[in-house]
Amino acid sequence: MGIEIERKFLVKGEEWKKQSEGQLYQQGYLSTHPDRTVRVRTVEDRAYLTIKGRTVGANRTEYEYPIPYADAQSMLDHLCQSPIIRKVRYRVFYEGLVWEVDEFQEENQGLVVAEVELADEQQTVAFPDWIDQEVTSDEKYYNANLLNYPFSQWDQ
Amino acid sequence: MGIEIERKFLVKGEEWKKQSEGQLYQQGYLSTHPDRTVRVRTVEDRAYLTIKGRTVGANRTEYEYPIPYADAQSMLDHLCQSPIIRKVRYRVFYEGLVWEVDEFQEENQGLVVAEVELADEQQTVAFPDWIDQEVTSDEKYYNANLLNYPFSQWDQ
Repeated sequence: MGIEIERKFLVKGEEWKKQSEGQLYQQGYLSTHPDRTVRVRTVEDRAYLTIKGRTVGANRTEYEYPIPYADAQSMLDHLCQSPIIRKVRYRVFYEGLVWEVDEFQEENQGLVVAEVELADEQQTVAFPDWIDQEVTSDEKYYNANLLNYPFSQWDQ
Repeated sequence: MGIEIERKFLVKGEEWKKQSEGQLYQQGYLSTHPDRTVRVRTVEDRAYLTIKGRTVGANRTEYEYPIPYADAQSMLDHLCQSPIIRKVRYRVFYEGLVWEVDEFQEENQGLVVAEVELADEQQTVAFPDWIDQEVTSDEKYYNANLLNYPFSQWDQ
């Protein structure tokens, strides 16, 4: 178990893409209840089951367990709520922090967000030029919510 | 991943109790959706996360992973839907099969059911004297449903 402290931002331009190679993520949900989200995720040929509690400020209780890839693929195909989210994640290092930039595909094509994990909520963050508006508290950017209300349906 | 074939029965008398020592089970649910049930279970000092698909006949897809006990207890206390189910499970051997007899506690006190796992749906089963009516297909006996509609509230 851990407590996750993350801040999430929109991204401008494509400068971030030059510094990293992406990895394909697939993820589906066995529960999207905000008090007890259960996620099945594959990262290239690895797979994980992740349980998260409700977000309080930028904190969220999280439990993650590796599982066999074949189990995860079968759950994504047969058990998870549809649709499945597919995205390419880039890890970009900047001033001592790691930014995870997610470029969504399919129903969420066009959406790109960057997340940074922090040691505490007050930690000072050096922002790369390509970081735009903060959306940490905006629930429509939660991956679990992108299933039922994908980016392609948002009013721009 | 496995496919679970189980039959479930009510139990009469207490003869079964003489042949086995019980183990305390606690279980809570992160999802009670019938297409994708997610259960946290402790058995004495061990703990498991179990994912089950929809029951079709007596078949059900099941994935089970051991997890740290402390994680499970924290999920039972803080993340799972309340109430938590507590029961004592007895394993009784009879004519080559193992019967799991669950004696429920708290909101479900008075309910005792026996389950037997089979190799296929047509397998011949030798019934002990203390086995009563079959309830395999009766959804109110699903553990996930005993949360919202416990035995103490049933019309007898």
